[in-house]
Amino acid sequence: MWSRRALLKSIAGSSIMTATLGTAGGLPSVAWADDELLDFRKGAKQLQLHFNENSAGMSPRALAAAKNAMDSAHNRYPDAAISALRQAIADKEGVSTSSVALGNGSTEILYMAVAATAQQGATIIDATPTFGEVRSFGKRLGMPLQIVPVRPDFTTDIENMKAAAEKANGPVLINLCNPNNPTGTIIPASDLTAWITNAPLNHTFLIDEAYFDYAAAETVGYESMLPLVKSGRENLIISRTFSKVYGMAGLRVGYGIATEKTAKHIGDFTNIVNLNIVGASAALASLKDEVFYALSLKANQRAKSTLLAALNELGLDHVPSSTNFVLHRINSTVAAYKRRMLANGIQVGRRMTDEDGWNRISLGTPTEMLAFTDTLKAFRMREWV
Amino acid sequence: MWSRRALLKSIAGSSIMTATLGTAGGLPSVAWADDELLDFRKGAKQLQLHFNENSAGMSPRALAAAKNAMDSAHNRYPDAAISALRQAIADKEGVSTSSVALGNGSTEILYMAVAATAQQGATIIDATPTFGEVRSFGKRLGMPLQIVPVRPDFTTDIENMKAAAEKANGPVLINLCNPNNPTGTIIPASDLTAWITNAPLNHTFLIDEAYFDYAAAETVGYESMLPLVKSGRENLIISRTFSKVYGMAGLRVGYGIATEKTAKHIGDFTNIVNLNIVGASAALASLKDEVFYALSLKANQRAKSTLLAALNELGLDHVPSSTNFVLHRINSTVAAYKRRMLANGIQVGRRMTDEDGWNRISLGTPTEMLAFTDTLKAFRMREWV
Repeated sequence: MWSRRALLKSIAGSSIMTATLGTAGGLPSVAWADDELLDFRKGAKQLQLHFNENSAGMSPRALAAAKNAMDSAHNRYPDAAISALRQAIADKEGVSTSSVALGNGSTEILYMAVAATAQQGATIIDATPTFGEVRSFGKRLGMPLQIVPVRPDFTTDIENMKAAAEKANGPVLINLCNPNNPTGTIIPASDLTAWITNAPLNHTFLIDEAYFDYAAAETVGYESMLPLVKSGRENLIISRTFSKVYGMAGLRVGYGIATEKTAKHIGDFTNIVNLNIVGASAALASLKDEVFYALSLKANQRAKSTLLAALNELGLDHVPSSTNFVLHRINSTVAAYKRRMLANGIQVGRRMTDEDGWNRISLGTPTEMLAFTDTLKAFRMREWV
Repeated sequence: MWSRRALLKSIAGSSIMTATLGTAGGLPSVAWADDELLDFRKGAKQLQLHFNENSAGMSPRALAAAKNAMDSAHNRYPDAAISALRQAIADKEGVSTSSVALGNGSTEILYMAVAATAQQGATIIDATPTFGEVRSFGKRLGMPLQIVPVRPDFTTDIENMKAAAEKANGPVLINLCNPNNPTGTIIPASDLTAWITNAPLNHTFLIDEAYFDYAAAETVGYESMLPLVKSGRENLIISRTFSKVYGMAGLRVGYGIATEKTAKHIGDFTNIVNLNIVGASAALASLKDEVFYALSLKANQRAKSTLLAALNELGLDHVPSSTNFVLHRINSTVAAYKRRMLANGIQVGRRMTDEDGWNRISLGTPTEMLAFTDTLKAFRMREWV
């Protein structure tokens, strides 16, 4: 056993490993697990590519603001910082401060929308796969649920979701993550606008735009639904986050935009002071750092190019992504793939699709993506992908 | 006008001002406002004594942990740090992790208790004056409300609250802030224990122990109701905060303790990840810094001694306090007092009692309390208090 492992490591290290030395003909047995660390990944930087975080982190200006707030005001209630952030968001989005609901991450905006519509006896209309918290909150609050699978091409099936909403025959909360997590796909703006503008007012639309910035920068046909809020539609809540392009997942800051009436209503379902001084100060500084914002988008695009080139080279099918992650084929079970990646210090996503054999990989920095694609190519040499 | 102001300033500065030179016979007119800055307060450190914060701030170890978390993990979801904090709280309180509900400040625990009992159709039984958020959340969620005034000595009138709860004839949420804010008084443990242990299960007790640490250290007859949770009472939620003795009001960390069943139930009414990496890391480090904890309590006691000595010297009646604030007479309207204190760079509380003429002063550091009591004594020289 030892000599075989040493042999494989030596081969991996010398880059002359061929498929014939791999595990052709099936998954390796458990006894092989010790052999799954590739030589060039020994002592390499660990990669966290499983939670759609931003590996590059937040704006240096935001970090400085956060530290300053920590030093000077960690013991003071953060109301003033929160008000300043609310104003900055309102200015950025072109709405009144009363149209801005702040959340402890955008997940809290989702919670607020769920709680507000639970009180109305709404049924949740949800896609699968999609970000699971709306469904989870709804279950906890006893709400009925209708789940509509995405289409074979992984795009959100809004026709069937619309049909399900109409069939519910009462108030519904329609959860649309756009771009969708974990598929990375968008709903064309024209289709979505047509649906919302023609829907009855007891159909509440929760548009989770956590990945808005990437799609808006990259994808023709994608648009935020914010203009519909501005046009006065009460049955619409847009949710945004500082966790993605702004790199602040650890600081828990998100927001919702809705008409003043709807924002006030969902605001009834939260604690009053739900951001801390550090999160609020960092978010405010982030909004002012346009240079960082542009760099953050650019780094994501570069990382995505590196990844897509490797996937294409390896013939691993992928779903077109408007986000900071890509859903792609791995020619393996997710369980085996995940275990092997972990053996090499790389955390990748869990299984998220009906069909086993797809992984949602979060885009790290461009450098991290090179390390990841090198690993992926070495996996191919062993016929692991 | 100018010369009169100059005269008064000169007198205040030389410490020989007498009551005859003050504003005997009533409140000064608005035209006097310019004269309200005492010479020795010119350029003095501003004091924030209005929100019951901890002027000394948090543990240096907590600050270091918070900065480390900020640097290393601001872009990563904080689940692991939150789990570690939950475990540390469970260990400290001697309960299972499932008995710990985390909150974005203890105010979120109050919200969760309100939302959970709103679903049951509960009436809120509240004291006045007390911390107002339970009532405020309840109003937003459409809950009926019964308000019971404190007794003439400012202690919580639990007999009348019990009578109100029984008269409600259905589920109730009984909000007991103990020690009470803004009175600083405690409910004797024996009385409270007797009430809770004999109450029907549809009477839910929310015991807000935000000021627990001060009372436990200082006041005979005060006890946490935590043992009743451990004995298995389902209709009881204890709430605690890191905003007071731990000096972390800006970082929004609080927790609730209840039976596993009740903790799970109130946990349904929150976002899943409701602390950020900085707050969770700082709170965890705070719990481990016993030296800081002891110093924090000691500083509060010293500040309180300084304040009480001055109040006694000036003959300003005060309510015995088991907290980090004191409710005391000011021989003035709160509005005039607040304005004059503000003119001297000192923020004091708003009006909180039925009878005008009482102020709730938060205890700053011992040094801050000396500056405050010097100001108070100078106010007496002008017959402002």
